[in-house]
Amino acid sequence: MTLSFANLAEFRAVLAGAKGPDQAAVEGARARNGQLTKPPGALGRLEELAIWYAGWQGKARPEWKAPQVIIFAGNHGVAARGVSAFPAEVTVQMVANFRHGGAAINQLSRCFGAEMQVHALELDRPTADFTQAAAMSEDEVVAALGAGWQAVNPAAGVLVLGEMGIGNTTAAAAMAQALVGGGGWAGRGTGVDDAGLSRKEQVVAEGLALHAAALADPLEVLRRLGGREIAAMTGALARARMLGLPVLLDGFIACAAAAVLHAVAPSLLDHAVAGHASAEGAHRRLLAHLGKEPLLDLGLRLGEGSGAALALGILQAAVACHSGMSTFAEAGVAGG
Amino acid sequence: MTLSFANLAEFRAVLAGAKGPDQAAVEGARARNGQLTKPPGALGRLEELAIWYAGWQGKARPEWKAPQVIIFAGNHGVAARGVSAFPAEVTVQMVANFRHGGAAINQLSRCFGAEMQVHALELDRPTADFTQAAAMSEDEVVAALGAGWQAVNPAAGVLVLGEMGIGNTTAAAAMAQALVGGGGWAGRGTGVDDAGLSRKEQVVAEGLALHAAALADPLEVLRRLGGREIAAMTGALARARMLGLPVLLDGFIACAAAAVLHAVAPSLLDHAVAGHASAEGAHRRLLAHLGKEPLLDLGLRLGEGSGAALALGILQAAVACHSGMSTFAEAGVAGG
Repeated sequence: MTLSFANLAEFRAVLAGAKGPDQAAVEGARARNGQLTKPPGALGRLEELAIWYAGWQGKARPEWKAPQVIIFAGNHGVAARGVSAFPAEVTVQMVANFRHGGAAINQLSRCFGAEMQVHALELDRPTADFTQAAAMSEDEVVAALGAGWQAVNPAAGVLVLGEMGIGNTTAAAAMAQALVGGGGWAGRGTGVDDAGLSRKEQVVAEGLALHAAALADPLEVLRRLGGREIAAMTGALARARMLGLPVLLDGFIACAAAAVLHAVAPSLLDHAVAGHASAEGAHRRLLAHLGKEPLLDLGLRLGEGSGAALALGILQAAVACHSGMSTFAEAGVAGG
Repeated sequence: MTLSFANLAEFRAVLAGAKGPDQAAVEGARARNGQLTKPPGALGRLEELAIWYAGWQGKARPEWKAPQVIIFAGNHGVAARGVSAFPAEVTVQMVANFRHGGAAINQLSRCFGAEMQVHALELDRPTADFTQAAAMSEDEVVAALGAGWQAVNPAAGVLVLGEMGIGNTTAAAAMAQALVGGGGWAGRGTGVDDAGLSRKEQVVAEGLALHAAALADPLEVLRRLGGREIAAMTGALARARMLGLPVLLDGFIACAAAAVLHAVAPSLLDHAVAGHASAEGAHRRLLAHLGKEPLLDLGLRLGEGSGAALALGILQAAVACHSGMSTFAEAGVAGG
């Protein structure tokens, strides 16, 4: 298995070697689940989660291992078009906040015992405004994919990917429109008003028009409309898929990164579960396209990986029940 | 404040002394929430949870303290009517499983750092079949309320109440019908077939008919149709309310216990948030009656406090974000 890539063609070739979960572990976990001291199905989605996790860990009775949370930050040329309620300087300010431990994702990572890293991707060099040119050159998008790929800790138990980048809901909306079709993908992001929302819609339309001829290729969608932090999430997701490392997906922007892999081949997201449904307008619609039912629906719309990190407790609980509960025979309880 | 009661009249008198949350702490928490490094409202329900918790703890910046999980177990005369998919012996067998650490709630309690206790309430003396007589005498229901009242640890940070009792979804259905009205409260519980469901509906109808004249008083509903573990949950919930200790509510049976207090006065549940929506048919309807929006909806229908325990991670995360995040001023981040 090739573990690196120098261009998009090599990245694509690497993805073609992806393998599925361990079917023996899946079957073993399913059999164990049926013997645990509870009525059949009484733990609801926790049961399917534990079986899914077992398959990717390759053990019928998997163990919980510390999660990894990775935050990627990038700046966007389209931010100059007035598509955010916050100025572009907030990206670098929030990176400092992540590094000092003051952001929501720091608290969530600590809460669920996750290691957390922040990767600031050339913040002083925003991507090009995609209404004028491709956001990134091939070298640039490959570098960002590679940054994500290298950031993954193969010893982690599960991966959460988050992002920070003023303007990136606009990039994600353009990507979603290119990958899924239809309109109405722009949302209020950090909280733009009606005029801001109209500008986002206009910017998305201009970008789609400029790049229309090239958007049948999902990796070109990423290069032309995405951003460095989005490409890094795509790269990290791909690495996790090749490693067989489970992933909890965060909100709209993280799912735009995931949608690139889904468009290459839907099975490339078999290792990923949707952590939550964001309040960002089009996130549920994107999740439906990806075939993912969110675990949580608590009105979050922060990014930073926060919704996925919040779901770590659910996954940990699922694994704890599956691997820690007694069977009917062990406990001397009469079956149903 | 009277801290004990010898009969139902005294219990009722104690409840009349309940006080609300600390309004200064609520206002302080709301002000702090508005200064944290995130767009306004971007943490969704986590924000309201943290403010609610702050009010009951009496601190604008509350601290997370270890939760307490208490499981009450009781046996039901109506179990002899074939209303469960499991035999009545399973109640005592599951109590042993709780004590040996093999049940789902043991794993969940460990996962979220909760202390956990199990109280088996006279399992060798089931309540009377409520289609023949009142389930409990006044002395019996007061003893069960008192067992719940005494079980609460005033130093806990939040309380989860769970139950085990073969036949208790039938008791809870009868209570819900008496307290809320309408029909269709019986569900499949641990997994009864269509014939079992019909028997449950029949048993509920017989119970309601026998006790019709006395059901305007919520404490009589508890005494006549409930069970010891349900009354203990009502007692523990009441004690938590008097202590100002927040509670996460579990499924249908726990909410039937809560509905007794709600019928006495809706404000007696101000300290309680719904941990989850159970797959047990009528739980959502009962939550709507109580005015509670569930945090989780993951298809659980196990009881044992499992759905509420699963929500502990959500509440802990809410408090961690609220009390641990930096403000815009502290982090040097430009506001929106």
